[in-house]
Amino acid sequence: MGEPHPVMSSAGTTMTLYEAIATRRDVRNEFRGDVIEEEVLLRLLRAAHAAPSVGHTRPWDFVVVRAPATLTRFAAHVAGCREDFARSLPPDRAETFGPIVIDGIEQSGTGIVVTYDPSRGGSHVLGRRTIDETGRLSVALAIENLWLAATAEGIGVGWVSFYHKAFLRELLSIPDDIEPIAWLCVGPVTQFRGVPDLEHFGWRAGRPLEAAVHRETYRTPSEAASGEQ
Amino acid sequence: MGEPHPVMSSAGTTMTLYEAIATRRDVRNEFRGDVIEEEVLLRLLRAAHAAPSVGHTRPWDFVVVRAPATLTRFAAHVAGCREDFARSLPPDRAETFGPIVIDGIEQSGTGIVVTYDPSRGGSHVLGRRTIDETGRLSVALAIENLWLAATAEGIGVGWVSFYHKAFLRELLSIPDDIEPIAWLCVGPVTQFRGVPDLEHFGWRAGRPLEAAVHRETYRTPSEAASGEQ
Repeated sequence: MGEPHPVMSSAGTTMTLYEAIATRRDVRNEFRGDVIEEEVLLRLLRAAHAAPSVGHTRPWDFVVVRAPATLTRFAAHVAGCREDFARSLPPDRAETFGPIVIDGIEQSGTGIVVTYDPSRGGSHVLGRRTIDETGRLSVALAIENLWLAATAEGIGVGWVSFYHKAFLRELLSIPDDIEPIAWLCVGPVTQFRGVPDLEHFGWRAGRPLEAAVHRETYRTPSEAASGEQ
Repeated sequence: MGEPHPVMSSAGTTMTLYEAIATRRDVRNEFRGDVIEEEVLLRLLRAAHAAPSVGHTRPWDFVVVRAPATLTRFAAHVAGCREDFARSLPPDRAETFGPIVIDGIEQSGTGIVVTYDPSRGGSHVLGRRTIDETGRLSVALAIENLWLAATAEGIGVGWVSFYHKAFLRELLSIPDDIEPIAWLCVGPVTQFRGVPDLEHFGWRAGRPLEAAVHRETYRTPSEAASGEQ
């Protein structure tokens, strides 16, 4: 797990599921500069589209963005949001944040903007009656499928979340009732790093799985009795 | 794609990523009745825990539920929510809905309740400043990893979203500041169906991928000019 994973694009599509899960990274720095082939792009989109969705609504859309002027405008907007975040940090965190690259918008050559359409499925969406957020969560399931397929193809993905939705709506003519969920930077990479960037740069250590697994109840009976969390 | 996929548990872990994506189903009817082995369960949880998350916060927790009394209580609650939904439907949709099974809570033998902790990562979460929902979306990414890993292991997963969060909080002693995101029914299955249940039962046909892919902008320039959506 600690070694970087070389990219073998010819063997990419036979990667096992568990290899893809272990190899996948949120890529910022390793884009090669060439653009993903159309055929591979379509395989990634097909993988995304095969994801589960509430009431089988497939409430997502994908906007493939390659126009250099659009990439440049979005990158400038994201750089501004990054500055705002940096200014909000206490000095020690600001210093740790300094060298961390948060996007690869222009370097990847392709943005895939994934959106959510709450009206998909009409007024009776099976499974969204009691919990409305399941629509939006379905879109994330599609994103993870795309991300893993990209990994198996030697393609890096970086999810950019430093932006304002209003800006992105305007930039891509996204109607008011459609919600942008993610801008994914998608492109061929030189390698997948062995550890996540945010661990590498000391921003945050990984939380161990053991801490996240509970049995039968979230709180142990004694915690629940004493009111602890 | 139309043929059911037989379950081969010994070969499960070498399934390729694309096979897992194509084979995965939202399972309701095909649980065998035996309980997932602990070792396999841990592999699924490890796969989930390897998902990307905003600011590398891993904001999820997993509550593994097997106590029969808890499964029975939750199943009764879900049955009530199902009735509410059925009553809200126009007659033709109610008839289509009739035979559709919406859960396998007791049949699967194991529930994995996935929760979201918004406080994970402290007050400066890298990537959640402008878009708060990225925390919750991260939890969905983990769920998709778990779902695909389960498929590769011959284990079915069904996401139940007919419930009220307040009921589930109470049932599992989930503190008020932790959000339940999903109840997943998880257990060995006889097969994965070739087509999704909701297509099989005529609830909803699949939306084609072509309809979901846009180039450069969401609306074509002429749509945008005329104000169409």
